[in-house]
Amino acid sequence: MKLVTFSTGEKPKIGIVRNDVIHPIEQLAPDAPAEMIDLIAEWDRLSARLSSAEAEAPIALADARLLPPILKPGKILAIGLNYRDHIEEVGMDVPTEQLWFCKQPTAANGPFAPVELPRVAESLDYEVELVVVIGKRGRHIARDDARNHVFGYAVGNDFTARDWQFKTSQWVLGKSFDTHAPFGPWILSADEIEDPHTLDIRCTVNGELRQSSNTRHLLFDIWTQIEHLSEVMTLEPGDLIFSGTPGGVGMGYAPPKFLSVGDQVRCEIEQIGAIENLIVAEAT
Amino acid sequence: MKLVTFSTGEKPKIGIVRNDVIHPIEQLAPDAPAEMIDLIAEWDRLSARLSSAEAEAPIALADARLLPPILKPGKILAIGLNYRDHIEEVGMDVPTEQLWFCKQPTAANGPFAPVELPRVAESLDYEVELVVVIGKRGRHIARDDARNHVFGYAVGNDFTARDWQFKTSQWVLGKSFDTHAPFGPWILSADEIEDPHTLDIRCTVNGELRQSSNTRHLLFDIWTQIEHLSEVMTLEPGDLIFSGTPGGVGMGYAPPKFLSVGDQVRCEIEQIGAIENLIVAEAT
Repeated sequence: MKLVTFSTGEKPKIGIVRNDVIHPIEQLAPDAPAEMIDLIAEWDRLSARLSSAEAEAPIALADARLLPPILKPGKILAIGLNYRDHIEEVGMDVPTEQLWFCKQPTAANGPFAPVELPRVAESLDYEVELVVVIGKRGRHIARDDARNHVFGYAVGNDFTARDWQFKTSQWVLGKSFDTHAPFGPWILSADEIEDPHTLDIRCTVNGELRQSSNTRHLLFDIWTQIEHLSEVMTLEPGDLIFSGTPGGVGMGYAPPKFLSVGDQVRCEIEQIGAIENLIVAEAT
Repeated sequence: MKLVTFSTGEKPKIGIVRNDVIHPIEQLAPDAPAEMIDLIAEWDRLSARLSSAEAEAPIALADARLLPPILKPGKILAIGLNYRDHIEEVGMDVPTEQLWFCKQPTAANGPFAPVELPRVAESLDYEVELVVVIGKRGRHIARDDARNHVFGYAVGNDFTARDWQFKTSQWVLGKSFDTHAPFGPWILSADEIEDPHTLDIRCTVNGELRQSSNTRHLLFDIWTQIEHLSEVMTLEPGDLIFSGTPGGVGMGYAPPKFLSVGDQVRCEIEQIGAIENLIVAEAT
């Protein structure tokens, strides 16, 4: 199933997309929660009923604005240096430990929403990533059990203000500007992807191919990521894991190819779909 | 006012503490929200009514268990190397830029709750900090206006697994173990503190004084912190800012004085109060 959070003018709703049509959840199951994060938590109770139900008044996908599938994630965790070609281009050693950082939840953004070139930052860069959405709460999740804690997958762009990322030793501010974590276009439920480590992943800027790889090149795979993170903290429904970006980011070019106002950045992952964001100046 | 989230067995409630008695908000204003984060967002509408109201059935403070004043903060931001004596003890240069990192929201813990020595970590350390609770949503908050965005203050302990903090370049995992962000005992509303940069701050372990300073020694003061953070991201009601720790942390001693199971760690800030946490082994 493809699950979206969307708006047609009024308040955000959640729905299921089939053949370019949104079936609003409130029409399919009146007892279902109104927010994606709560739907995920109650998924076992509701999924069978939702999988084949048809809405009485479905909405054409083109008539809705897609919002971040999860409006306010509890966590946005992200792993650095996790594709070999990306490690080479930034001139770092291959990590022996998983290198985790995070984005603040206020960075969450819709799949086709504008992304801001911040007033105070200069070097805006893109990073296409496979986003893992946690389904089942857990701590100390064994690698073999990790798959059972995944609700689904989305396409994400880990936008980064490089000047702010490297202003101090810690990356979190450079990774957390408002609008800098667009993801979507939907959450594809995990049952539809046999192995998330077989997917072509690419990013174009104004149609020019910049990043092109396959998730089989992940250094630490998704199950290993979940095992490691959950040694530290409880993973909860709706938490997001940005699983790493392949080579081809703007700062990897000489001279660097940072983003400018007016650029169109498109991120695409096989089987899941694509998101596309226009770079705009932050309003003053 | 002193605002608490508490439990007497059933589900968490919020209340106001006066003279060691909790006045549950639900008895004072039936139209008030049930969670602190929502109360903060609606504070302007409710505060006048709450300030003098008496509950019909108040609860002795000793009969309630105090929970994290905000059960699930949207953000927990924390600044490193922000007291001169702490910078000296860890042998770092005085930063010219504010050094921000964060803790994950699942680390939030009650003011008197046990804190876990993680199964996978060895070097558990304490860091007493003045915690700032954001009240009013904002971006690009000017230093002169920052005070108006603060809801109140609490005492916090930024527990840290030093071995995990320095395993990679990024500190977030070492700062984010479950239970490692106790704070409270309440939120003292900002109107009760004329200047948060005049407060004695101390930490004892089993009664032995380890950290003792005053918030006037903050390198970057709270208003400057809010200005800087909000250049990057929207600050929202209930977001927490851990404003830095003074000298005397365990890793500053030679040999280091890390925490063991059974240790009692007490953090105290003038005018606000104290929190105290027992170190326990993480359950297996």
